Amino acid sequence: MNAHLPPPPRRPSSDFVNGTTRLFGIVGHPISQARSPEAITPALQARGLNALLVPIDIAPADLPELFPALLRIGNLDGLVITVPHKAAIMPWLDRAGPRAIAAGAASVLARSADGQWLGELFDGTGCCASIENRGVGIAGSTVQLLGAGGAGSAIAVEMLARAPATLRIHDPDTDRLETLTARLEKLNAPVKIEAGFGPADILVNASPVGMQAPDDCPVPASYLKPDLVVMDCVIEPDPTRLLRLAREAGSLTIGGWEMFDSQIDAVCDFFTHVNEGKIGDVIFPG
Amino acid sequence: MNAHLPPPPRRPSSDFVNGTTRLFGIVGHPISQARSPEAITPALQARGLNALLVPIDIAPADLPELFPALLRIGNLDGLVITVPHKAAIMPWLDRAGPRAIAAGAASVLARSADGQWLGELFDGTGCCASIENRGVGIAGSTVQLLGAGGAGSAIAVEMLARAPATLRIHDPDTDRLETLTARLEKLNAPVKIEAGFGPADILVNASPVGMQAPDDCPVPASYLKPDLVVMDCVIEPDPTRLLRLAREAGSLTIGGWEMFDSQIDAVCDFFTHVNEGKIGDVIFPG
Repeated sequence: MNAHLPPPPRRPSSDFVNGTTRLFGIVGHPISQARSPEAITPALQARGLNALLVPIDIAPADLPELFPALLRIGNLDGLVITVPHKAAIMPWLDRAGPRAIAAGAASVLARSADGQWLGELFDGTGCCASIENRGVGIAGSTVQLLGAGGAGSAIAVEMLARAPATLRIHDPDTDRLETLTARLEKLNAPVKIEAGFGPADILVNASPVGMQAPDDCPVPASYLKPDLVVMDCVIEPDPTRLLRLAREAGSLTIGGWEMFDSQIDAVCDFFTHVNEGKIGDVIFPG
Repeated sequence: MNAHLPPPPRRPSSDFVNGTTRLFGIVGHPISQARSPEAITPALQARGLNALLVPIDIAPADLPELFPALLRIGNLDGLVITVPHKAAIMPWLDRAGPRAIAAGAASVLARSADGQWLGELFDGTGCCASIENRGVGIAGSTVQLLGAGGAGSAIAVEMLARAPATLRIHDPDTDRLETLTARLEKLNAPVKIEAGFGPADILVNASPVGMQAPDDCPVPASYLKPDLVVMDCVIEPDPTRLLRLAREAGSLTIGGWEMFDSQIDAVCDFFTHVNEGKIGDVIFPG
């Protein structure tokens, strides 16, 4: 006869993940720097959803095989797309929003109630919202944008909808600068579009200057004045050298984290509205 | 001049997921019933890992395209495999453990330090451990196993390593019963292997009886005696009718949750040992 033992104590259960958890992800390469998992997960859970947003590291060479496969996971409801995949994933969208079409890139994808994948670009929305959230009006102003790459293109497209008097764009890569200004002209917005660098009411740095080399600043210190509003899309370091110099010059400064944070509710709205089939013609006209 | 506003308060950050989180998953269809996410995630985190185990719902028709793609996600370190994919995923393993080879199925996969995917079958380990954890010796005993399917096969293979005197197996599907007993005979264990149903020291229900129809019991009530040990692999309902009747008859009863819980440490060991390249020839001989 064996000496029987009592059952072991029950193991602890997670209170944030189980078999019914809906999955969201951020796809990029590398992915360790991504802030969406820690920032968007609490925002989804605050809406009462049993959901997580997890990092998904996909190398560029693997994207053509992995990305369409990923979209068929049954409990995957949405994706954030980051560097370097924002333009590359466009062919797999069933439907793209107007900002994504204008910029040729998407930053957020959601699965609709009927199984379609819809994508839109929120980078510009976040930048403009972070400026407006600080009481700064864009309409009628002169905006100096630095950088005509992915972030710069998205911001330029969104800026047009806010009707500044002038949108002036600088980029040392004159080819992509011309491509962007030509594309913007086609949108027929009532905004003067210029290539170049000069005086402005609002300066937006959408170039990577200040990210890799934290002592670099994309404009001369003499450019920074008390009546200038300075927005830097670079998140790390916080503050960047640009923002430190701007603060010393008396400018209102807006950091990359404000741009990032101001997108969170819009991204969560997009996820939940698309998932629930509530996406309207306002976001997807035609 | 605008009336400028202060920066918004920082948004809350998750304390359990960020860009550096390592991903684990459970692949099955359906997936909502899976207990691994809520049970294995705390166990991984208790080891100091920044890791999550998330549900991944893959329909059988999608498995050939999705599964190999999934294995190439850069920050995916391990997978639990559940119904109906345990046998189907075998072709994508770079290396299979002895239990997986013997049963033709794997329940846990881990990525090794050199990028290979290793798989092993833990269902039998969990069943035998849950019996032994209650002070019941398997060596020299007569074991009556019900069910020659996926779970039954895994348990039969593991039982042989514990050297009962007799392993008797019952299954109404005589074809798969014969397939299993023939496969077990080839392992040349010093155990008498029988097909059929009769008196025993330990009864293990690895059939689905009692799961879908909770009033069903896989054996007559008269079979249940005080000196019988009764283990039921069915997790829900808890207890099953078999375990309720066995308890009334004075048997020692062991529930499916004990089998599940007793695998958790072994599964986490497998994940971390394989990930860190510490998997030895004990688990993967030859």
